[in-house]
This record gives sequence, structure tokens and C-alpha cells, in this order.
Amino acid sequence: MLAGGVGGSRFTQGVRRAYGDADITVIGNTADDITLHGLRICPDLDTLMYTLGGGGDTERGWGRVDESWRAVEELRAYGADNTWFGLGDRDLGTHLFRTQLLAAGVPLSEVTRRLCARWWAHDPALRLLPMSDDPVETWVDVPDPEAAEGRRAVHFQEYWVRLRAEPEALAVTRVGIEEARPAPGVEEALAGAELVLVGPSNPVVSIGPILAVPGIRAALRSTSAPVLGFAGILHGAPVLGMAHRLLPAIGVEVDAGAVGRHYGSRAGGSDGVLDAWVMDTGDETSVGAVEAAGLRALVDDLVMSSPDATAAFVRRAVERVAA
Amino acid sequence: MLAGGVGGSRFTQGVRRAYGDADITVIGNTADDITLHGLRICPDLDTLMYTLGGGGDTERGWGRVDESWRAVEELRAYGADNTWFGLGDRDLGTHLFRTQLLAAGVPLSEVTRRLCARWWAHDPALRLLPMSDDPVETWVDVPDPEAAEGRRAVHFQEYWVRLRAEPEALAVTRVGIEEARPAPGVEEALAGAELVLVGPSNPVVSIGPILAVPGIRAALRSTSAPVLGFAGILHGAPVLGMAHRLLPAIGVEVDAGAVGRHYGSRAGGSDGVLDAWVMDTGDETSVGAVEAAGLRALVDDLVMSSPDATAAFVRRAVERVAA
Repeated sequence: MLAGGVGGSRFTQGVRRAYGDADITVIGNTADDITLHGLRICPDLDTLMYTLGGGGDTERGWGRVDESWRAVEELRAYGADNTWFGLGDRDLGTHLFRTQLLAAGVPLSEVTRRLCARWWAHDPALRLLPMSDDPVETWVDVPDPEAAEGRRAVHFQEYWVRLRAEPEALAVTRVGIEEARPAPGVEEALAGAELVLVGPSNPVVSIGPILAVPGIRAALRSTSAPVLGFAGILHGAPVLGMAHRLLPAIGVEVDAGAVGRHYGSRAGGSDGVLDAWVMDTGDETSVGAVEAAGLRALVDDLVMSSPDATAAFVRRAVERVAA
Repeated sequence: MLAGGVGGSRFTQGVRRAYGDADITVIGNTADDITLHGLRICPDLDTLMYTLGGGGDTERGWGRVDESWRAVEELRAYGADNTWFGLGDRDLGTHLFRTQLLAAGVPLSEVTRRLCARWWAHDPALRLLPMSDDPVETWVDVPDPEAAEGRRAVHFQEYWVRLRAEPEALAVTRVGIEEARPAPGVEEALAGAELVLVGPSNPVVSIGPILAVPGIRAALRSTSAPVLGFAGILHGAPVLGMAHRLLPAIGVEVDAGAVGRHYGSRAGGSDGVLDAWVMDTGDETSVGAVEAAGLRALVDDLVMSSPDATAAFVRRAVERVAA
């Protein structure tokens, strides 16, 4: 599976529910990672880890359940910068542990394994890999009349959390992506998979960066497993989050069919990565355009209202592709 | 003033009570600073800052009032090392802010100024200076039959907090002390002072390191102000803490008079730093030995039972020296 954070976690819960005993490797997005207050924070990996480990806040969708915010209140009292990020006291333990190991030279994939050893001990067949051990950060250009060229770049987290995706996203840059290599196990997992699922996560800042790590696209194109993608845009709006604010920056319409065509068909001569694209029933009108792009187009009810609901649509899609 | 942490804070509270409108510069010990979980922690500076700022836990004597320990519980759950140190969630805000500024190249003295700007805003005539901007760490050799030469070195905090000063202290080493320089303002404060007070803090790990910073001893010997020292050993036992476990390692008897002679007289040809040494009434038998070492010996009730009690004995000592 390829997955982002909040939506990726819900999707992964459904997949685990659908295939209770399968070996599942989640390849998580790390391009929204950020260093704040000297701590390396991996929001998507942590959301996956906490949610699937039963330690996540299910109401909020991210961070730890029963969280407090005392350390960050102190930072605010000192006048520290960047206190807009939701850094809980329990969550801090994760960031401190990770930052210390990274500083000691432990690769992120190994750090993630150690963190998950606590959270996913009940499910040893579930494995979380960062897309890369190399740091990649998504930055967004936003209008700024006072800046040179009328724009400035902010970290994706600042755009998302502090600015609430309100300014127009003029461009999206993935700093470090050219030098990044897939984390150990990523290419092997894709090559050895029986099935690859691309979750309904943000195509620009979650799935996009994973696909942009040199080597991952090739691994998806060459695996013998079928590759199924799931639309996170339902009826022209994101099922979660604010993907509609970012798709225009990469020239993709806010439309389920357009995202499927953006990911592209493995059968084509270009660099597409999917065999099939699953859209919500409300997007049935896009089926023709998706099929014209060489993809098998499926429609179903894609609202992830519960792990059971998600499990049901995943199972149906897999069965239809296998049939 | 020269001061350590818990005892130094109580003493400073008394001095402020005694001289309500005086400019007071506290030169704080930084040799018990430690880096844990990637954070630079300055226990003595923080205890002074919190206590004099009204944010300290008066029961415990260190750390923040109304503290919680959620982040460190998470570190324990991950199996992190060194979770024996009392790292509260509110306290973490201080360490994160400081560590980030230090990493950006801001000297510790300036970091301390910024931290105190929050805590000591009500008392702008009170100033806290680290003894040095250069890192100094006290390490203690303890017996270890399995180690080479039968001993191993542990950081002072590990000796103090984790090992509760139970193993014999075979030697005390101040790593970095030779290269350390007094922080900006330290020598100037001593040169320009009307009065210098050496607090009743631990002679080995609090006052000792301050005196060992090259330049500070000379500044104490050359200032025109009288230099009064206060015994922290009362009737052969420390008024606070565990100085009795460390004095033997530097060859000093656990006795108020012995500590005064260890600090020495400025009048002597050696490197003494005091004019007068104030001992508890119970140590009156040491007066002769202290006077024989060239120091003016005073006795008084030195139990710091309240800021008023401390203020009273400080005022009496100063008046007697001035008389």
C-alpha cells in the first residue's frame, strides 16, 4: 500500500479489516515531515502508527488520544516561533525518541521499525516503511505582495496547518526528491507483492511524493501484482483534507477521473502506475475518460464511514480486478 | 552571587528579600548541565529561574510547579535510555526553546537572558548569568568491578539522580573546564560589585566549577568588594543535597570549617577567594581553624527555613563585615 496520513490511516484500517491475516506493507509519505523546535516530526508516519496501533485520537484523526499541550504552551510563553503546529506532550515523546536516533545516525526506516515495535506489536504482519530514508520536504509557493517576485515559499505544514490552505498554491516543490532513494524494503515489497493498493490520499502532497522518489515509479510499473488506485476526490471535493487547494498547482483538475488519469496506466508507454482506478459512484460520468486513458475504471461507494465500509469497497474492487 | 541550584535558589530568595532594590547578578553553575534526548538541560540555571520567577515547585525544590510527566512516560514506553531524569512536560518547553537557540548559535548567556525575560520580568534588577557559555560537565568516577581499572565515569546527574549518590565518588572531573571562559558580564559583575556572596551550595559540583572557570578566581581575588562565603555544611552534614558524598573525592573533610579553608583567604598568597566565612552556630568550634587560615569567621543560625530567615542571617553577616 501507498498511503498518506489521516486518509491513509482510515484506508489501512479498512484494508486490515478486509484481509485480517495478510502481510501488509504500508509505504508512508514522508514529504510532509518537518523539523520544529529541533525535533524531526513525521506526521503521516505517526498518524498511521498511532491510528493502527490504537493510540491515535479518532475524533481529531491525528495525534495521540488523551493528549495535552503543556510543553507547546511553554514555548508560546517564551515567544518561540512556529507554535502553530499541534505538538502534544505525549506526541513529543515520539519526536524526541526519533530525533535522538536520527542524530545518532539510525536511518528513518529503522527508527520507524523501532517505534512501530511498540505500537504494532499486536499485528506483526503489518509493517510501516517510510518512502525514503532521505529527507524530502514539500514546500508551497504562496502569494506575498511584499516579497520578491510577489511570492514566498512556506513548508507544506505551514501552508496546511497555519495558513489552513487559504492562500492560493502557486507551485509545489519537493525539496530533496531528486537525491532521495527508496527506503530499504520499499522496492522489494512492491516487487514481491500479490497486490498493490494506492490509497485515497492527497495526490499532490501524499501519493505524489511517494511516486516521485526515483525508483518507486519503476517498481510500480514492473511489479507482477495488480495495482489498484482509490480516488480521494469524491464528486469534485476531497473526502478528507484540502487536496482541492493543491491540485491546481500541479495542473490537475479537482475531479476523480482527472486524478486517475494523472496517475496513469501501466499499460501505456508513458510513466503511469495503475491498472485500475476506483471512483465513487457519484463520479460514474468519469468512467469513459478514465478507460480512454487505458485504465480499468470501477465505481463504488468510497466513503470511509467505518473500517467495515472501507473493507467492503476494497474487497469488492480487488475481487472485480481478479475476476 | 555565586550559586548552585536548589540551595542557591533559596539563598537568592533570601538575598533578594534582604536587599529589595539592589542590582543582583547571580552567577549560576552550569557544570551539572546535561544533554538528554537531544535536549540541553541546565538544571541549576532553571531551578534559579523558576524559583525566583514564581514558577518553581517549592515542595520538590526543582522543576516547574503543577508539572506532568507525559512525554517522558512515552520515552519509557519506547524503551529510551536515560529516562531517570525528571523531565516534566512544562520543563520540556524550556529545554526545547534553549536547545533550538543554542543550535542556532545563540550563546547560553543570551539564551538565559531570553528565558529570564519571561520569568524575571517582575524583577529587572535581578540578572542570571551562566558561569560560562562554554560547555562544562562534571563526571564522577564510581566503582565498577567489571570495568577496566575497576571504575567507570558517569555524568554527575546520573550519579546524583539515578544512583542517588550511593556509590563512592572516587574522583570528580570537570570536562571542558580548562577551555571554558567566563560568560560575558561575569568578570565585569565581580569587578564592579559592592558585595560578593558565595552561596551555601555544594562546594564540589556547584561552587567548585564556578571557581574553576579560568578567570573567575582571579576576578574574585581582585575585586574591591568584600567576598563573603556561607557554609552549606552544618554540623558535619549538608543543609541540602549530598555534598558529604562528594567532598571526600576532592580531599576535603565534611566540615564547615574545612570547606571555608578549602575556599581560602584572599589575604593569603595562595589562591583563596574569601574575606569572611559564615558558619552555623553549631560549628563554632571551627572558628579558630578558619581564622588561622586568614579568614574572618562568623557564626549564625544558617538554616534557610524561610526567605525571611535567610535574609536575616545574610544582613547580619554583611553588617558585621562592614562594621
